[in-house]
Amino acid sequence: MPAGGRIRFKTDSDYVVVHAGTYGVLWDDINDTLTSRLGFDMFELKNGKPCFSAIFVPSQGAGKNYSESRVRFPSAEMRELIIDLPLFAKVKDVYIALREGSHIDCGTGYLHKKPIVFYGSSIVHGVGAGKPASNYPAIIGRRLDSDFINLGFAGAAKAEKAVMDYISELDMSVFVYDYDHNAPSAEYLAETHYAGYMTVRKKQPNLPIIMASKVDYYRDEAENEKRRLIIEESYRRGIAAGDKNLYFIDGRHIFDDDFRNESTQDGCHPNDVGYLAMAKAFGEIIEKLI
Amino acid sequence: MPAGGRIRFKTDSDYVVVHAGTYGVLWDDINDTLTSRLGFDMFELKNGKPCFSAIFVPSQGAGKNYSESRVRFPSAEMRELIIDLPLFAKVKDVYIALREGSHIDCGTGYLHKKPIVFYGSSIVHGVGAGKPASNYPAIIGRRLDSDFINLGFAGAAKAEKAVMDYISELDMSVFVYDYDHNAPSAEYLAETHYAGYMTVRKKQPNLPIIMASKVDYYRDEAENEKRRLIIEESYRRGIAAGDKNLYFIDGRHIFDDDFRNESTQDGCHPNDVGYLAMAKAFGEIIEKLI
Repeated sequence: MPAGGRIRFKTDSDYVVVHAGTYGVLWDDINDTLTSRLGFDMFELKNGKPCFSAIFVPSQGAGKNYSESRVRFPSAEMRELIIDLPLFAKVKDVYIALREGSHIDCGTGYLHKKPIVFYGSSIVHGVGAGKPASNYPAIIGRRLDSDFINLGFAGAAKAEKAVMDYISELDMSVFVYDYDHNAPSAEYLAETHYAGYMTVRKKQPNLPIIMASKVDYYRDEAENEKRRLIIEESYRRGIAAGDKNLYFIDGRHIFDDDFRNESTQDGCHPNDVGYLAMAKAFGEIIEKLI
Repeated sequence: MPAGGRIRFKTDSDYVVVHAGTYGVLWDDINDTLTSRLGFDMFELKNGKPCFSAIFVPSQGAGKNYSESRVRFPSAEMRELIIDLPLFAKVKDVYIALREGSHIDCGTGYLHKKPIVFYGSSIVHGVGAGKPASNYPAIIGRRLDSDFINLGFAGAAKAEKAVMDYISELDMSVFVYDYDHNAPSAEYLAETHYAGYMTVRKKQPNLPIIMASKVDYYRDEAENEKRRLIIEESYRRGIAAGDKNLYFIDGRHIFDDDFRNESTQDGCHPNDVGYLAMAKAFGEIIEKLI
């Protein structure tokens, strides 16, 4: 389940093969493509700008528990490549094959080496994204040329003490606390949201922290307004307590009002339209903070 | 393979069940979700505006050749509903179940009853769309409240004489001639493009016709520029011959330059971002013509 995992390198090979064992797909969902569940995709940096290059086609059919495919380039010049790992399959033994005699280099690395950390539900994880690279953490990381860590847990993000303790120890540039969806109730959210934020804040007094409320607000306005107010209240408490590096993103306003009905896959999880809207909204703030 | 097929009705049932036999999935593609291949989705008209309501979850697992699921409404008031049929499965025996004793009505029907006809490749058909309703013909039909016919043929649109003859007989409001991709070569396109247009024009002298060149232009600029010029040449010939109702959409400019890399699923087929961009570009012209 290596959501957010990437392999970045330079090579002048005229092809790239990916071979990986894939097993235990966490999220065999009707909303996801085989590419996002089991596949790999690749971007090439051209003058520092990431350009979509290829997807590596996952194996299909009963009994196949590996992914293997090849992409070819039109020439053998030096390229800086980023391969994104699948969102929902467990992956082991990733092999990358290049032409014999070609060169390989670790490349220039990220412009922002310290990662942005995203924590939250299936919407952080990437359910509904068409390929590994099209959920909002991946789009932001790529466009800002920043390392990032995707701590999205489809169905399981509850701001547990152990998880918040773990996050508080991470060396990061920005923390995105997009925790709303998987709280079992508004009451649970109220009990855990500020506490989770404080766990991180106590350990890292100057870290930029972004709190966000859920994007599929209009699905159930009555319930979601309660949750939104809880998160806004966390934010206000933090600011009142003197926090100088705390930000709030109101999920209500992220999807284009005129195209709200085109922004999710299933009414809840963003599709590529919704993820791009999130990437723009979060990215605009993060860009100023890293 | 009922791409573009819809069932539109009114009911005050507090639930809707869809049961349909599905078989012979044409396009078992890594780029498509199970929902778009085998599923149904539903929109509800609220004050004449289509609002995403639900997806009907396709059956999964070996040996299951039907789709059956239910959605519930919070109340039993009268609603106007549109159910979109799957893009890639063949469908037979579609049953819709409502609560016993509830009412059913044919509804108000489309504002524009004469259909828009879209003809073209897999990109018209909907490969890469996350659900049946998110390819560009479906978005345009829904937003303009117009009936439409999707004549997208994944892998098989070659402007064959029989198909163009068939299209020329259809009673329609606008004809979208988005035929570029599946022409085996630029030469084949040159031989068939103007001829195909003339087959329709001769039968329907006053019909608005929109010619479009491919949206994934930047994938292979050299080849695609040849094709673009062929289509533009068809357009210029038509205009020079006195056609007063002919339009040209240049595929190069449809995807947002800044987000071109976020606009396709696999480098070729649009994802939901790309389809929405197409729906905006084509919809803007079609809106003035219907």
